[in-house]
Amino acid sequence: MAKIVVLYKKPSDAEVFNKHYSSVHVPLAKKIPGLKKHDISAGVVGTPAGSSGIHLVATLYFDSLDARKAGLASPQGQAAAADLANFADGGADFYFFDTKDV
Amino acid sequence: MAKIVVLYKKPSDAEVFNKHYSSVHVPLAKKIPGLKKHDISAGVVGTPAGSSGIHLVATLYFDSLDARKAGLASPQGQAAAADLANFADGGADFYFFDTKDV
Repeated sequence: MAKIVVLYKKPSDAEVFNKHYSSVHVPLAKKIPGLKKHDISAGVVGTPAGSSGIHLVATLYFDSLDARKAGLASPQGQAAAADLANFADGGADFYFFDTKDV
Repeated sequence: MAKIVVLYKKPSDAEVFNKHYSSVHVPLAKKIPGLKKHDISAGVVGTPAGSSGIHLVATLYFDSLDARKAGLASPQGQAAAADLANFADGGADFYFFDTKDV
């Protein structure tokens, strides 16, 4: 399974972020072709030391790296990417990788 | 489902890291009580800009935040944590959070 992990850093206004994220961004992301599963953090994102600078973690799952690439390159993928500028003002780190169970 | 996401930064010697990780660390981690699933990145961890500073991403899944806490606090969890010093010389970022499907 190929994953995209997105670490959204703390935005200037968490309430504004959350509203846009759930009402606009998630519906856009769910249209990405090949997306098999999509989960997000619920509540605080912690670290061994306590709180983190991360507001939300999203994970998107695709069957393969090629499916992930095609999904992001699609018009729907591009629309979701373009929407980031509308709410993720704290920045976000994206990581792309294939996975295997161990 | 509660997750632990570990971003292992690039170590001084990837071959040494990989050997220790697969032969020692994964077996230790798999003994953590309550661990339901464990997957790791396979191959390169990329970003939208290209390569990342991340060598490996591990995700550990538990039924709940309480199960995750109990697992890490157990002797087996402590043994896995203590083992990090033996191979993760590039450092690692740990994130703890509950998840929901969207």
